[in-house]
Amino acid sequence: MRDVYLIGIGQTKITKNAGVRGRYLGKKAIDQAIEHAGIEKKQISMLVMGNMMAGMLAKQQQLGALTADVAGLRGIEAVTCEAACGSGAAAARWGFMSVAGGFHDVALVCGSERMTHASLDDTTKALATAADWELEGSRGESFISLNAKLMKAYMETYGVTAKDFGHFAIAAHDNGLNNPMGFLQKKIDMDCYLNSRMLVDPVKLLDAPPICDGAAAVLLASEEVARAAHRNGLPMIKVAGSAIGTDSLALDTRRSMLELDGVALSTRRALAQAGLKNEDIDIFELHDAYTIITTLSLEAAGFAKKGKGVHFGKEGEITPRGKLPISTMGGLKSRGHPVGATGVYQLVETYMQLTGTAGVNQVPDPEFALVQNIGGTGATVVSHILQRCA
Amino acid sequence: MRDVYLIGIGQTKITKNAGVRGRYLGKKAIDQAIEHAGIEKKQISMLVMGNMMAGMLAKQQQLGALTADVAGLRGIEAVTCEAACGSGAAAARWGFMSVAGGFHDVALVCGSERMTHASLDDTTKALATAADWELEGSRGESFISLNAKLMKAYMETYGVTAKDFGHFAIAAHDNGLNNPMGFLQKKIDMDCYLNSRMLVDPVKLLDAPPICDGAAAVLLASEEVARAAHRNGLPMIKVAGSAIGTDSLALDTRRSMLELDGVALSTRRALAQAGLKNEDIDIFELHDAYTIITTLSLEAAGFAKKGKGVHFGKEGEITPRGKLPISTMGGLKSRGHPVGATGVYQLVETYMQLTGTAGVNQVPDPEFALVQNIGGTGATVVSHILQRCA
Repeated sequence: MRDVYLIGIGQTKITKNAGVRGRYLGKKAIDQAIEHAGIEKKQISMLVMGNMMAGMLAKQQQLGALTADVAGLRGIEAVTCEAACGSGAAAARWGFMSVAGGFHDVALVCGSERMTHASLDDTTKALATAADWELEGSRGESFISLNAKLMKAYMETYGVTAKDFGHFAIAAHDNGLNNPMGFLQKKIDMDCYLNSRMLVDPVKLLDAPPICDGAAAVLLASEEVARAAHRNGLPMIKVAGSAIGTDSLALDTRRSMLELDGVALSTRRALAQAGLKNEDIDIFELHDAYTIITTLSLEAAGFAKKGKGVHFGKEGEITPRGKLPISTMGGLKSRGHPVGATGVYQLVETYMQLTGTAGVNQVPDPEFALVQNIGGTGATVVSHILQRCA
Repeated sequence: MRDVYLIGIGQTKITKNAGVRGRYLGKKAIDQAIEHAGIEKKQISMLVMGNMMAGMLAKQQQLGALTADVAGLRGIEAVTCEAACGSGAAAARWGFMSVAGGFHDVALVCGSERMTHASLDDTTKALATAADWELEGSRGESFISLNAKLMKAYMETYGVTAKDFGHFAIAAHDNGLNNPMGFLQKKIDMDCYLNSRMLVDPVKLLDAPPICDGAAAVLLASEEVARAAHRNGLPMIKVAGSAIGTDSLALDTRRSMLELDGVALSTRRALAQAGLKNEDIDIFELHDAYTIITTLSLEAAGFAKKGKGVHFGKEGEITPRGKLPISTMGGLKSRGHPVGATGVYQLVETYMQLTGTAGVNQVPDPEFALVQNIGGTGATVVSHILQRCA
């Protein structure tokens, strides 16, 4: 297995109404990534697209071949990968394998999603396909109601209130203020959070991620290509770990509803691959789709004890200068969650952190980051560990 | 890169109305493949699902994690891969990489598709997402009309008639008669073919594949596992080549509408990887979705000259005892084309041919088979070369 490096990044500004035809959204991010890496298009022989909803909302499948063509890469190996909201990182996992395994020297990974051109009803229904349709969706559960079920169970089990979750949303929005590519640039406080519109009790608008459009891209390459590529004097960023763990889709059939076994498995596998322990991780770019998922992810990934995750960060531990920064560029909550693209945005932002180019939100001198993207309420969990090399 | 072997196969009988809930269709094929390989479930650490339409027609995404769970493999790495009608083989491509690259010792690949539980109109619309929606689908083209366009162009360019395509359908149906797992067991002759219902001129019902449900699975493994696995005294089957080539989705933007560049690229790459030439191939299990695609595939893959593909097989060259057997168990035409599963059915059938277990349709003593599965009208072309080892 060869070492794999992240050598280029691209991201479109996340918006409501991308303003371009679907196929060009991915191209915009790809063009940026290629320019950023300073490589030639002809060096790229693989494209993996991450997308969840284009078939349902835009009547378009085969985004792999389509995007390769539009991006001027017609003919290369191109595929599409789906793991609901974890599609972007799952695509990166395939891209990683294709380079690490020696199949390609340079693989392009792009996550792209348009969610705002359809009706809210259609988009909500499309999101519900991430859950178990037979056991959940067909019984009237939406993605919001499932997270409400989790949040309520957590509150009852551990005797906490809605207010206990607020700091996650506030911290994410604080970070989002300094991310010009993000969707929501709006400072919020606890009053805002507590008074935000109730969606499905106890999930409020500010517990949930916004519906939006966006595309992000990363270029993965062998060491030889990475060393030769123009790097603007930045440190090389290695993919030190890459892993997927899964769980049942339906909440009711889990071993324990409040323990995300998929997160635990995925984290453990990625850490083992990188030869690291939790305490080595300087940034945990997690999947803060809902404040309850942030909570449960911190616990299952081993950064907080069971029932204590909700309190983690109340003392500022999760801010860029804290002990374990999360959602450093706003997270799903503020940067936005164009579902199939999110996992790639996370990699782009983490690259910026590790190369010291994250701007106002720069985490001081990070070396290892754990980047985690989740499909459904914890069914497919994709973890990558990025490492800043000397 | 490690050698990869195909060590187990499973397939459900293709039907109209699978009779089981979607999630159990894949499980049936998986259970068979595990039993066939004689391995333990705990040896399997990866599942790649190929599927095209579950999101659109069954409101269910994340088939990877879902199927792993249902099959008793909860927790393992599990993903879903989409390349329209080429999804099954694209999943096999990922499974191949995961073993060849040393990421997993045993990877399960399953293609599953249910097409008959939705209305014909919904299924037809879902199939159209395989084409370019902006340039084709939104302008009223269906998948059938696009193949009609290709067939008409071929007939006009090379001065042939509908009758010239009939032998492909007849040969496929002849083979399908002896495939108990296939969908259509019906002998047809040239009169049947010529008198079959016109769908979109010049494509008739017997030029096109049937809409049906099915799932197939294969187990891919490292040499060590393959050697240790119980093989019922059958020869070992190696994956000697695995490749993807792409082209534009839309017919009008191709370099040359009647030349499937994706097929040419994909074939060339797979042959090069296996160190083979066209004349070494004993079976070409091709993507005979439409008789025109059979024709163009034979040409682009290098088995017939431009404009001559339509005549290939008229002397029996494509029958099991011919020079280049195709569609040996009925092909998409007669075995059926449950889209995201087709590519895996092809691998299952080819395994049977190479191990001498194909029954009445057994090709005499084949050593190398090229297996090709196509997404859209030629946009994503996945080729695998299977080799019978001593």
